[in-house]
Amino acid sequence: MLFMVEMDVNIPLDFDAAEAARIKAAEKAYFQTLQAAGTWRHIWRKVGLYSNVSIFDVESNAALHDTLMALPLYPFMTMKITPLCRHPSSIHEDDR
Amino acid sequence: MLFMVEMDVNIPLDFDAAEAARIKAAEKAYFQTLQAAGTWRHIWRKVGLYSNVSIFDVESNAALHDTLMALPLYPFMTMKITPLCRHPSSIHEDDR
Amino acid sequence: MLFMVEMDVNIPLDFDAAEAARIKAAEKAYFQTLQAAGTWRHIWRKVGLYSNVSIFDVESNAALHDTLMALPLYPFMTMKITPLCRHPSSIHEDDR
Amino acid sequence: MLFMVEMDVNIPLDFDAAEAARIKAAEKAYFQTLQAAGTWRHIWRKVGLYSNVSIFDVESNAALHDTLMALPLYPFMTMKITPLCRHPSSIHEDDR
Amino acid sequence: MLFMVEMDVNIPLDFDAAEAARIKAAEKAYFQTLQAAGTWRHIWRKVGLYSNVSIFDVESNAALHDTLMALPLYPFMTMKITPLCRHPSSIHEDDR
Amino acid sequence: MLFMVEMDVNIPLDFDAAEAARIKAAEKAYFQTLQAAGTWRHIWRKVGLYSNVSIFDVESNAALHDTLMALPLYPFMTMKITPLCRHPSSIHEDDR
Amino acid sequence: MLFMVEMDVNIPLDFDAAEAARIKAAEKAYFQTLQAAGTWRHIWRKVGLYSNVSIFDVESNAALHDTLMALPLYPFMTMKITPLCRHPSSIHEDDR
Amino acid sequence: MLFMVEMDVNIPLDFDAAEAARIKAAEKAYFQTLQAAGTWRHIWRKVGLYSNVSIFDVESNAALHDTLMALPLYPFMTMKITPLCRHPSSIHEDDR
Amino acid sequence: MLFMVEMDVNIPLDFDAAEAARIKAAEKAYFQTLQAAGTWRHIWRKVGLYSNVSIFDVESNAALHDTLMALPLYPFMTMKITPLCRHPSSIHEDDR
Amino acid sequence: MLFMVEMDVNIPLDFDAAEAARIKAAEKAYFQTLQAAGTWRHIWRKVGLYSNVSIFDVESNAALHDTLMALPLYPFMTMKITPLCRHPSSIHEDDR
Repeated sequence: MLFMVEMDVNIPLDFDAAEAARIKAAEKAYFQTLQAAGTWRHIWRKVGLYSNVSIFDVESNAALHDTLMALPLYPFMTMKITPLCRHPSSIHEDDR
Repeated sequence: MLFMVEMDVNIPLDFDAAEAARIKAAEKAYFQTLQAAGTWRHIWRKVGLYSNVSIFDVESNAALHDTLMALPLYPFMTMKITPLCRHPSSIHEDDR
Repeated sequence: MLFMVEMDVNIPLDFDAAEAARIKAAEKAYFQTLQAAGTWRHIWRKVGLYSNVSIFDVESNAALHDTLMALPLYPFMTMKITPLCRHPSSIHEDDR
Repeated sequence: MLFMVEMDVNIPLDFDAAEAARIKAAEKAYFQTLQAAGTWRHIWRKVGLYSNVSIFDVESNAALHDTLMALPLYPFMTMKITPLCRHPSSIHEDDR
Repeated sequence: MLFMVEMDVNIPLDFDAAEAARIKAAEKAYFQTLQAAGTWRHIWRKVGLYSNVSIFDVESNAALHDTLMALPLYPFMTMKITPLCRHPSSIHEDDR
Repeated sequence: MLFMVEMDVNIPLDFDAAEAARIKAAEKAYFQTLQAAGTWRHIWRKVGLYSNVSIFDVESNAALHDTLMALPLYPFMTMKITPLCRHPSSIHEDDR
Repeated sequence: MLFMVEMDVNIPLDFDAAEAARIKAAEKAYFQTLQAAGTWRHIWRKVGLYSNVSIFDVESNAALHDTLMALPLYPFMTMKITPLCRHPSSIHEDDR
Repeated sequence: MLFMVEMDVNIPLDFDAAEAARIKAAEKAYFQTLQAAGTWRHIWRKVGLYSNVSIFDVESNAALHDTLMALPLYPFMTMKITPLCRHPSSIHEDDR
Repeated sequence: MLFMVEMDVNIPLDFDAAEAARIKAAEKAYFQTLQAAGTWRHIWRKVGLYSNVSIFDVESNAALHDTLMALPLYPFMTMKITPLCRHPSSIHEDDR
Repeated sequence: MLFMVEMDVNIPLDFDAAEAARIKAAEKAYFQTLQAAGTWRHIWRKVGLYSNVSIFDVESNAALHDTLMALPLYPFMTMKITPLCRHPSSIHEDDR
């Protein structure tokens, strides 16, 4: 089941740089695990912004919630969630 | 080069039904040609809405403009365009 | 799986009254079938508005989309969809 | 008498963690007392957000105000209040 | 129990003038009955606008809904509803 | 001459509690003087919010400005001002 | 007593041209009478828009309401009203 | 050439009071020089707000920019700029 | 003196096609005259939209107003006007 | 390929002045390099604001993203990105 998740990241100007680097590294590792598993199906940068648009493939609303809440950068993020479904005109079986 | 395009469709209540069906059929055929060519890379319905979120892969801004302007349903659509680029953490080479 | 759906109804002032009555009757019948089946789990009027807030219990995003698109009043509605999940503090097992 | 209350929680990044844990525990206890009494009739998490949708069943506007103002997390919350009433098409007597 | 109701009236330019006059007269009569009964406790014009701000005193959310839905001008109105309660600092017993 | 004034109060989480209590007490005293004088004609709490809707009866725009600027809580408030006048359908002479 | 009034004019594309011309001529005559009397103290066009920003000098809120409601173009206008008062730093006595 | 400039002032609660007083005094002196010169043609307080509406008369866009940037309170202000021109119906030659 | 003008064009679905073509041809001719004269200094399409962003170089606010009001497509346009000036860091003398 | 980029700069009131001056000097040098290279094709100040409108000419979305992310003032900026293309009516070959 697919969801579009739009994430804006905002780290305060005076936040400790070493701690920020540590959190970003943890975020990257967590992201890559989810991407390899197919849960985090797509990710793109929004040009010029510290933001991304992502497509998640999850079992349920609850699974999406738990996945997002575990993001190391979650406390610095604003989230917008849009539930998606397959488009009836699509010629791709997998483009759910 | 990738762009997210969010399309909302709004056909007036009193629009001729046969003409609407003809335009939708033309839209579907045009869409499937672009999807087969890889230009219209992804499409998903927004749940509960007559709207979609799409990812286009085009050569240039001008190519995107010309592609969208040729949509048979264009006069009934509201568009939001967001330029995208590859996310640096992605493990997929092709997820531009 | 639960979703909050907020529906605003807007029937044009000059819409045929008999046709409107027919559509509302079809809407009521369809609604009551879904309510009896447990799909349309809750519905409340927003006070002073021709709007409701509803809780749907469905198998998937796609099931919600198909259910909403089949509403007889759908062409007269504006929809807002919010995916929900069980709250961790809840003492009720069923309040998913 | 029913009200929808949407609550967004925002605890500052630099707020003392032990104090936050204490307040959240107090919130949970207060919530469960109200839920057991039937005052806090429903609660759901909004997926991906530190937010909930709740349905309150109270005697009066004043009772709702006093109940909400006593929430331990109130100073960290943004609230949106929507008065509700029974939908005339509902087949459930109790779904006020 | 008190509610603030803000009403904006918008009658289309091409609406039949005699019919509009008839509806406004019915609105005025209905309003004065409610005002005399104490249900429509206050009404003020917003300066320069075809809008009012009103205070209703009703038994319940449902009573307010039924009262508003019966307004002859309701199909031409946009409504905003705000539940109110007595202010703790007020020196007037009756300013509920 | 009547004005609706909507006031939202926002005292920072880390503001000194004793100082806040002192300011609130000054606010209450100032409010009650104005209420007794008839200048602050009505006040109601917005349910669930640290906000009120008030009706002021003043000689002029300047008198309203001076009255509001002297509120002890003014630096913590967001204000919205709406000029009002008597509604032509009102049966009360005094409901200006 | 001064008020800023911002007026946006929107005459439908298919409105009768002769009737529009007649209404605009009546508007101009009414405006010039008020301007000569000092009631309509200032008027400026907003560049590129069919809109103006005006300063009215009136006895009361009610006088402003009656003046605006009598505008021949009123049914085609959207209004925004802002009450003003003299700035304490002004060196001009008359710039109320 | 005329411009409407709307200025909202927001000095943080914990800003040094003596420094604020010094800046406000400098602002007042600068304002009065510009008012005497005819550059700051009008100024009015928005009732109940720490905001003003002003009309500037300048040679060019660049002259307006330089004038505003030199305001001692500029770092505490939010600005909205609207270019104006003479209204064709005005009977005053000077009300540019 | 430079201004950014953002224009959105919206021709109703049922507007006469031949008349629309005539107006667009007149718009193009008028535009090219202004472009050749240097008044309409730049124009770009916003990708995917029937909108443009333009830079005008005019003598005064009034000259810009008169130029825009004379656009054949003006009655179908929504306009946003932003006054500009030369950036102090620019290395180009002419990039006013 | 052209993009409009609107940049709003907001440096906190209590940010170190020497550090701010250092960052602004780095920004100016970086800007002028890009301007000389033709990448930063145009820049204008928005009158009265610490904001600019810029036109970038880049090879791709990714090139724009990398260019903007390298701005020394980026952490203090809010960005809005609008993809552009040549207008079909333009008489200038180069006004892409």
